[in-house]
Amino acid sequence: MTKSQFLSGDKAAIDEFIDRFDVFLFDCDGVLWSGDHLYEKVPETLEMLRSKGKQLVFVTNNSTKSRADYKKKFDKLGIPAENEVFGSSYSAAVYIARILKLPAPKNKVFVLGESGVEQELESEGVPFIGGTDPAFRRDMQPEDFDNISNGSMLDPDVGIVLTGLDFHSNYLKTAIAFQYLQRGAEYLATNIDSTLPMSHTLFPGAGSSGAGLTKAIGREPLSLGKPSQAMMDAVEGKFKFDRSRTCMVGDRMNTDIQFGIDGKLGGTLAVLTGVSKKEDFLTEGAPTVPMAYLNALGDLLG
Amino acid sequence: MTKSQFLSGDKAAIDEFIDRFDVFLFDCDGVLWSGDHLYEKVPETLEMLRSKGKQLVFVTNNSTKSRADYKKKFDKLGIPAENEVFGSSYSAAVYIARILKLPAPKNKVFVLGESGVEQELESEGVPFIGGTDPAFRRDMQPEDFDNISNGSMLDPDVGIVLTGLDFHSNYLKTAIAFQYLQRGAEYLATNIDSTLPMSHTLFPGAGSSGAGLTKAIGREPLSLGKPSQAMMDAVEGKFKFDRSRTCMVGDRMNTDIQFGIDGKLGGTLAVLTGVSKKEDFLTEGAPTVPMAYLNALGDLLG
Repeated sequence: MTKSQFLSGDKAAIDEFIDRFDVFLFDCDGVLWSGDHLYEKVPETLEMLRSKGKQLVFVTNNSTKSRADYKKKFDKLGIPAENEVFGSSYSAAVYIARILKLPAPKNKVFVLGESGVEQELESEGVPFIGGTDPAFRRDMQPEDFDNISNGSMLDPDVGIVLTGLDFHSNYLKTAIAFQYLQRGAEYLATNIDSTLPMSHTLFPGAGSSGAGLTKAIGREPLSLGKPSQAMMDAVEGKFKFDRSRTCMVGDRMNTDIQFGIDGKLGGTLAVLTGVSKKEDFLTEGAPTVPMAYLNALGDLLG
Repeated sequence: MTKSQFLSGDKAAIDEFIDRFDVFLFDCDGVLWSGDHLYEKVPETLEMLRSKGKQLVFVTNNSTKSRADYKKKFDKLGIPAENEVFGSSYSAAVYIARILKLPAPKNKVFVLGESGVEQELESEGVPFIGGTDPAFRRDMQPEDFDNISNGSMLDPDVGIVLTGLDFHSNYLKTAIAFQYLQRGAEYLATNIDSTLPMSHTLFPGAGSSGAGLTKAIGREPLSLGKPSQAMMDAVEGKFKFDRSRTCMVGDRMNTDIQFGIDGKLGGTLAVLTGVSKKEDFLTEGAPTVPMAYLNALGDLLG
């Protein structure tokens, strides 16, 4: 069984670990902060890594924010992050625009999600409907059943359904998206995290707000967030790095750490400030084991 | 491989089939009607069975209607059905009140569903919150995260979360239900049908509107609808019948027909007017095969 190395408090082991990598990919929620609460010594830790010449990339599954939104959050919390943020909404937009490339006008996206998704689709020139449009934020009416069924409420150009974390999910949007899927639309998700850590507990995540559609159609979407390697390829395409000299830092075994392992990165580093507990990877037979772990990211300061 | 007998047009086979049973359990949506569209010759077929002395029971997974609501629907469509309707909301209410029997006051139910669930809980004297209460039909606000987490928005007496088909599902209700489950509440569902046949197509069903919660908590609810045998036991407890002389009639293999097979009924009869197609059970290796099938229920008239 692979054993994870505990680094907190072991200055020599920490220095040796850091020296093995040129690039650190960071998850954000649960690693740098929880909601608006920044964890202790995070800015100093990131600054220490920069001072050693390391490249930092912030890889987040949170689809409600665009890269621009994230930049504002980093600024507010006092962390420099110039063009270093890569979110799952951007990942999905890049996939749709540059890889899937459905022929216009049938490349329109029906969005189940918040403005982060919309902003990133716009940045890649992808047409979309749904999303934050108030017209879809209403109760299902009896006549909607017929009008969805006969197509009069549908846009014939929609060729893709994209789901992300949606704080305004409802039956109407799910029913419309379901009908697009029944008519053959591609089924994508920014990410499928089951939960969202907030306010010291767990709330429904993107995988939860999209689960109704998944259950109805009977198959999973292609996820463009961690641990999907479509996201790793996109991150590598943008930032260029030697995977053997790259380390993924995260709090979730089944997204962050699996993302690094599947991507054949040189290392993975877990922190215990988020979702996964050390029992999750120290137990015999644990499916995902990080190379090393810390109580908190700030422990890297030694 | 078990072969299903095709009865439509074969008068002798139909008569022989009918003679084997004293009791017929009917699914409703997809068998008797689709939405408000009654299928051809349904009242005459039911009347023919009654004239032969058969007992009829209407066993439906539709949780949005109470038995009283269903009675109104039968009346409107011209089908007599006095105390013969057994719905999944009633099944859930009976389970909570007579089997689960949590000690008061910790037996309060948080409902994700429509008024059918509420009416049946009331009929069994079970306290509940949520459901159709307009207070829960609103957008999630930033302060809700803290107030759900610290319990100030929760009712300490809630010991059960019950999900059914909810046309007003939203993030707020799912987040609250998820918090109750994280605190140890029992997790029940009226039924977990993935889809709802309406207007000649499929819409999200109870299993879909509850799927967000299932995904977040990472386990399935105990379902009190077909094919759960908890429902069969409740139906038998109320109507008393010889299972070997009872036939389940339905349109869905994985709910209706499986319900009859698991319940060791004397027979199962599929109709092709609903969700399942004949390829679903005539194909080699099909998981659920009915004893016999008809193009439509009206074909029983010969």
